[in-house]
Amino acid sequence: MQTINIESKLSLFSDYWNPRIVGELNGQHVKLVKLKGEFVWHHHDHEDELFLVVKGVLKMEFRDRTEIIHQGEMIIVPKGVEHRPVGDEEVHVMLFEPATTLNTGNVKNERTKETLQQI
Amino acid sequence: MQTINIESKLSLFSDYWNPRIVGELNGQHVKLVKLKGEFVWHHHDHEDELFLVVKGVLKMEFRDRTEIIHQGEMIIVPKGVEHRPVGDEEVHVMLFEPATTLNTGNVKNERTKETLQQI
Repeated sequence: MQTINIESKLSLFSDYWNPRIVGELNGQHVKLVKLKGEFVWHHHDHEDELFLVVKGVLKMEFRDRTEIIHQGEMIIVPKGVEHRPVGDEEVHVMLFEPATTLNTGNVKNERTKETLQQI
Repeated sequence: MQTINIESKLSLFSDYWNPRIVGELNGQHVKLVKLKGEFVWHHHDHEDELFLVVKGVLKMEFRDRTEIIHQGEMIIVPKGVEHRPVGDEEVHVMLFEPATTLNTGNVKNERTKETLQQI
């Protein structure tokens, strides 16, 4: 039970699309991730996901539109909704989601992270 | 499923100790609250609570120590742990906690908010 500094945690890693766990509560994980480029289209069968932009600009693509999410803004993607996160430039994002959430959702490929590091 | 701007939401209210719901996912609420002064000592029997400081400085008092939480920092208070939030000056905080969470936890008094407004 200690104070967690988001910027300090983000300074501990530099790779993209590899979320780190920085907190756990009520079966949910708080994660930090750096994104750049295009991720894979996917959805989560059982988990809603919150994306809070800490730095940069996140483009969240849906099949019918794209949301542009700036620093200090967030979006909740409900379970079942196909989405693809995109960062034209590096984006730092905080995630809130159930501990069961797999980063690539229903898809398994080279970007799937089965286990996440806690920092 | 739209982008939520934290600062814009915070501009919609000015009273203290009255959390507003700005998002819901996986049975959890995302809330925004403005704090100033001392709250009541309380704990939550069943809910862990996350406090993310958006603006200002939050003092989280525990029975044996105090954590100072600045903008861009957060703390998770586990269920059962007595705590008292204090803001010497106005503090803006994002909360992430189960939808069942009562602001004053095990205590009911004039500061208890049985129902929260969604904004």
